[in-house]
Amino acid sequence: MKKAEKAKRELIGNEGMVLLDMVRRLNRRSATGHLLKLVDKTHPADTAWVFRHLNEEERSQIFGIIAKTESVGEFLSELDEAILVEIVQELSPQYLAEIITKMASDDAADVLEALPEELANDIRRHMEKKDREEVDELLQYHPESAGGLMSPDFMSLEQNLTVGEAISIIQRKSEEMEMVFYLYINHEDGKLAGVVSLRELLMNAPERELKNVMNPNVISVSTDTDRGEVAHVVSQYNILAVPVVDSGYNLVGIVTVDDIIDVIREEATEEFLQMAGAGKDREILLKSTFESAALRAPWLFASWVGGVMAIVIITSFEEELSKVLALAAFIPIIMGMGGNIATQSSTIIVRGIATGRVNMNEIARVVFKEMRVGLLLGVIYGLFLGVVSYFFYNDPKMLGIVVGLSIFGSMVMAATLGAIIPLVLKRFDFDAAIATGPFVTTSIDILGVMFYFYIAKIILSL
Amino acid sequence: MKKAEKAKRELIGNEGMVLLDMVRRLNRRSATGHLLKLVDKTHPADTAWVFRHLNEEERSQIFGIIAKTESVGEFLSELDEAILVEIVQELSPQYLAEIITKMASDDAADVLEALPEELANDIRRHMEKKDREEVDELLQYHPESAGGLMSPDFMSLEQNLTVGEAISIIQRKSEEMEMVFYLYINHEDGKLAGVVSLRELLMNAPERELKNVMNPNVISVSTDTDRGEVAHVVSQYNILAVPVVDSGYNLVGIVTVDDIIDVIREEATEEFLQMAGAGKDREILLKSTFESAALRAPWLFASWVGGVMAIVIITSFEEELSKVLALAAFIPIIMGMGGNIATQSSTIIVRGIATGRVNMNEIARVVFKEMRVGLLLGVIYGLFLGVVSYFFYNDPKMLGIVVGLSIFGSMVMAATLGAIIPLVLKRFDFDAAIATGPFVTTSIDILGVMFYFYIAKIILSL
Repeated sequence: MKKAEKAKRELIGNEGMVLLDMVRRLNRRSATGHLLKLVDKTHPADTAWVFRHLNEEERSQIFGIIAKTESVGEFLSELDEAILVEIVQELSPQYLAEIITKMASDDAADVLEALPEELANDIRRHMEKKDREEVDELLQYHPESAGGLMSPDFMSLEQNLTVGEAISIIQRKSEEMEMVFYLYINHEDGKLAGVVSLRELLMNAPERELKNVMNPNVISVSTDTDRGEVAHVVSQYNILAVPVVDSGYNLVGIVTVDDIIDVIREEATEEFLQMAGAGKDREILLKSTFESAALRAPWLFASWVGGVMAIVIITSFEEELSKVLALAAFIPIIMGMGGNIATQSSTIIVRGIATGRVNMNEIARVVFKEMRVGLLLGVIYGLFLGVVSYFFYNDPKMLGIVVGLSIFGSMVMAATLGAIIPLVLKRFDFDAAIATGPFVTTSIDILGVMFYFYIAKIILSL
Repeated sequence: MKKAEKAKRELIGNEGMVLLDMVRRLNRRSATGHLLKLVDKTHPADTAWVFRHLNEEERSQIFGIIAKTESVGEFLSELDEAILVEIVQELSPQYLAEIITKMASDDAADVLEALPEELANDIRRHMEKKDREEVDELLQYHPESAGGLMSPDFMSLEQNLTVGEAISIIQRKSEEMEMVFYLYINHEDGKLAGVVSLRELLMNAPERELKNVMNPNVISVSTDTDRGEVAHVVSQYNILAVPVVDSGYNLVGIVTVDDIIDVIREEATEEFLQMAGAGKDREILLKSTFESAALRAPWLFASWVGGVMAIVIITSFEEELSKVLALAAFIPIIMGMGGNIATQSSTIIVRGIATGRVNMNEIARVVFKEMRVGLLLGVIYGLFLGVVSYFFYNDPKMLGIVVGLSIFGSMVMAATLGAIIPLVLKRFDFDAAIATGPFVTTSIDILGVMFYFYIAKIILSL
């Protein structure tokens, strides 16, 4: 079953590859006319995908063609930031201003935000006053807030209008609007009053007033709501767009579900990278070797420092080690079992926090559960190892008990700390995802090794 | 800046807690009337959130109240599977059939799919023939395919109708449809011909024929398309719903964007868990200690076996170790640096595959980049450690060189393997996410330790 589905997915991946090959071939033959036709009938999102896989020289040539099409604006807004910044280097601010003016203003603001500040200001100077003001309005918000996500192109009407009047206004005006499927209704003073879907509007008699057909329990967010929270609202309530209000409850924009999907994907990618201690730059794959190494180096440094501490600790037990050399052989398994169960626990908790399944008022319950899992698995794998080493390494006789107890102790400790640390980080407003990075796992490693040597010292009376 | 946003998010979390407390308090006082009112005005998705945090006894009491409201069907469809299965144990199949019949048929099919087969069949027997057939139709598809996701409640009309006729049909019929914002157009023989949005429909003269106003380039998926691919299509093209066609290109359902958001979140959660070697059960937090331990045990077993192999390897170097006891102290840092850089590389690649950023035809480029990063970071941290140990552990004199070289070698090897393994898994249609689990990191640990002792043996001429 799984097999067939995967093959299907591969096939669609292949369609992308076919398109990429075709673009490359036409470009090598300098078949500009054919390329133009091809780009024209390709969705800008697909063109952006192809573009990502071209080399720098090809990109510059192909962009010359894309620039001639209607969809150049949409194409730019689909590009990865790193590629966008690379491609605009060669273009004049005038020309860029022309393209950006034609884009939806939220996309235009996003592009300007991604560019180097100086270039962005140059472009803004070349824009008409009205367009510039609209974009500047959006640029004032933090890019990770509802204000930074929203589009100001929405449809809102006063509550005293009738359904018939509303429909005829929509027929005249909705061309410039983004995704009209909800009509927002406001009070006479401009405050948000309710919402009605286009479909519901059509199902009401033309003479009814909007205030009598609208749903007054409209879910809204404010301009400074964090984008993760906006995503939560949209997905929790299955809505297609959420209105954004300012401090005076006036409607200033809407965030549509397509942008929410991007937010969810981007936040997941950031969380993945953070959990692996690889920074949180979503475009790390597009970075150079040096940039990638620089993003990853700090986390490895934490691990390096931890390793040096382990050297110091083990060296301090040199005497014990010299008496029972076999102790060295068990270091990897004690670290490995502790590290792996800690990663399991912290990943489950971190993801639970991200998806709202871990309730911060139930910390004790969650931690005790992980501790119990650690106890259970610690007993099993500790016993396993104790028995195995009793049979194969019975000199000294108590070695089996030492390593069994150590595995048990380090797994219980690791599972418990693995659960506690993300919760503590979250409580103090840090990113819980850091908890699974090298910093924490390394600390758990060190504690495990220390515990092991102490147990050995005591039980073997070294 | 970050601080303010976080505080905001916390506040909304608090609203959930306030609701939870209120429900608990009213329940303790057996204030049924108040509870009923409260549930009635709460969104079913929020009620489901509260429900997740109640204990078993409270759940059974509160469900008695929820069952009296109109939204009980929607509430059930928002529940986690584990809780759904728990709550239905107490209900009669007749009663469940009654609720399920009132639900949207795709939600009804999802609920039936989640229940134990025997109970699901009991419920099906109590449903009216027409309802049962509709649900059975959906149940025939794999739950992870477009067929398993789709809703059969869509609006499609023949292309020869006029805009005016279409609008009046929508006004009469759309009540029972899910999220009508696209109208699908079919040929006389029933095959999918095009799509038009409700807004575009309104903007055309009533006498125009649908075939002249529709967009004939309609993006569709087939019933057996994998749900991940459906999510990809919806997010790539920023659409609100995608039509699902059968093998004859007849429209049989639509997948709406709200379901896509769930798919994206669920797939990310599964990927997280798999990467941590914690199974792939999204509801692991709701499982008992035993169930959770059982899901995690196999992965830890891989790590345990790896640890035992490390014991064997280190023991085989006992003689060398007895001559240079200090070698033991460096085992943790060599394992740690290798393990951490491998996790970084494989996470970056795994996420790149999931988001379509890693192109399977560019494997060599991607792997060499990771190898270069490994070389660069290996030189840096190897040099660091070599110098530090030269000054503090200069007996034997070459120990610094041994550990420096070992860190370097194990990091290059780990970064390279960390990149190669997910790509190989993907190539052979396995889940790339397994690559970051304990199995692979443990193998890398073992290789690192082996490499270290060999280098020591050679350089120190032990």
